Amino acid sequence: MAQRVTYPSRVRIREVGPRDGIQSEKARVSTEDKIRFLDALSATGLRYIEAVSFVSPRAVPQMADAREVWAGMSRNPQVFYSALVPNARGAEVAVEVGADGMQVFISATDGYNVRNLRKTVQDSFEDVAAVARIGADAGIPVEGTISCAFGDPYEGDVEPRRVCDVAVRMADLGIDAISFGDTTGMGTPRRVEELIDVLRGRLPELEINMHFHDTRGTGLANALKALELGIDYFDSSVGGMGGSPYVANASGNVVTEDLVHMLADMEIDTGIDLDLLLETARIAAGFVDGELPSKLLRAGPRWRRPG
Amino acid sequence: MAQRVTYPSRVRIREVGPRDGIQSEKARVSTEDKIRFLDALSATGLRYIEAVSFVSPRAVPQMADAREVWAGMSRNPQVFYSALVPNARGAEVAVEVGADGMQVFISATDGYNVRNLRKTVQDSFEDVAAVARIGADAGIPVEGTISCAFGDPYEGDVEPRRVCDVAVRMADLGIDAISFGDTTGMGTPRRVEELIDVLRGRLPELEINMHFHDTRGTGLANALKALELGIDYFDSSVGGMGGSPYVANASGNVVTEDLVHMLADMEIDTGIDLDLLLETARIAAGFVDGELPSKLLRAGPRWRRPG
Repeated sequence: MAQRVTYPSRVRIREVGPRDGIQSEKARVSTEDKIRFLDALSATGLRYIEAVSFVSPRAVPQMADAREVWAGMSRNPQVFYSALVPNARGAEVAVEVGADGMQVFISATDGYNVRNLRKTVQDSFEDVAAVARIGADAGIPVEGTISCAFGDPYEGDVEPRRVCDVAVRMADLGIDAISFGDTTGMGTPRRVEELIDVLRGRLPELEINMHFHDTRGTGLANALKALELGIDYFDSSVGGMGGSPYVANASGNVVTEDLVHMLADMEIDTGIDLDLLLETARIAAGFVDGELPSKLLRAGPRWRRPG
Repeated sequence: MAQRVTYPSRVRIREVGPRDGIQSEKARVSTEDKIRFLDALSATGLRYIEAVSFVSPRAVPQMADAREVWAGMSRNPQVFYSALVPNARGAEVAVEVGADGMQVFISATDGYNVRNLRKTVQDSFEDVAAVARIGADAGIPVEGTISCAFGDPYEGDVEPRRVCDVAVRMADLGIDAISFGDTTGMGTPRRVEELIDVLRGRLPELEINMHFHDTRGTGLANALKALELGIDYFDSSVGGMGGSPYVANASGNVVTEDLVHMLADMEIDTGIDLDLLLETARIAAGFVDGELPSKLLRAGPRWRRPG
């Protein structure tokens, strides 16, 4: 049963710690710390960073200073800085500040969408369309995120076909790069494979990003399965910042340094300097409450010697 | 790049928490708690349990009551109870108490072997041979463990060829089931694949067990890779008991419930009842210091609903 698989030779990592990570942290993070963190990330070799979200400060107090953070960070010309935007208002701010890209999101399911955005998936599509239009007019690329792509805690399993239906509608709006979010950590290698199969069948040109969580321990196993199926674009969060939104003290986002460490061992190029990345994880450890789930931060790389 | 892989339809899990797990815990675990834990494990559907080790109480104080634990536990006739033994003296005790099997161990490398057993690999083979002989005479199966099979913290990477040399010598002594231990968490999917390739080439009849650690986050990714290559026999520890021997607060053994949860989702049969397994993890959580690394213990299975 020796089954030979090949992997992409190069992988793009989009760092979501400054937005997705910080947004979910309990500790209030100062504007200065956010900027310092972003500037450190910009020097690691990372090429894609989701820097902030332009959302209502009432809905997401952690992002109330998003404009200040954006203005204060030093933009490395080699880095693509995106902003998460829920609607036209957010998209207009992203255009105004000169974001390199925008990320718009919707859930695969009403169960989560209604609780997260207080509207149905159907209604949310109006926001997605508005953001897509604003991006197109301004010449700024818009990527999409589909939450609960591997399961919805309220609805249970989500058929890949349903997730794909949402992706098709996004693609119809001109969004041809989509991130599939394992929002509440229900993804497993099997679900990853099933979803990719369906997506490849119906949207062969789609640029697929995988946004995994490690809530149930399968974060890197899911990434391995995706790599085997040719996926070369992943979201992750330095230190593993951003816990599960539904389980206290549970891990959330896949840890960037743990993912990069595994990829480096597979000789898959990410362009990222692991030592510099670990430095940024230490910065993050300084401003969050409690301990970050990062394994590498504790154990160091596999080539570390005792003592 | 759609690469279809198949998995074993059934997987054997050997629970090592009562021995490997408890042995590495800082908290002193009472004889009563050990017995209660073993009896609970015996009722989960697990078929293989490494119950104790018969070692010098000076070397491993946690196992000083191994005879009492063995005598006190209720043996489920459907469970195979093994004991870890380092040498002839331990093997004789295992025979005396009526162990179903014995596990003898050696490192792939002198770097670790000398520090762990205070002798070279070469010298340790005399102990392995003695245990094999005692097992054969008593009609008790002896399995082997090769530590540091994916890297030695003192020597660095360990060539699969070297690990295989040790396996060949063990097989020559009549030990035809060998566990490959990722003792200090240096295993990665790539190293797993490389080792399995070499083993299959030189020892096609060898029964391979994989003993992974999750020190650097790749525990389940390593298991997935091994499954893809047809491996159907794994060690794991309930709750993830037993930290890394070289890194403070780092995860050690792969978590049984996290592994079983992933396998169940893949429709791979383990015979284990996940709810009962989680009960045993709660028992373990009650007698260890600090928090267990188990993800499932926090998040519950993927079919759990919020609230």
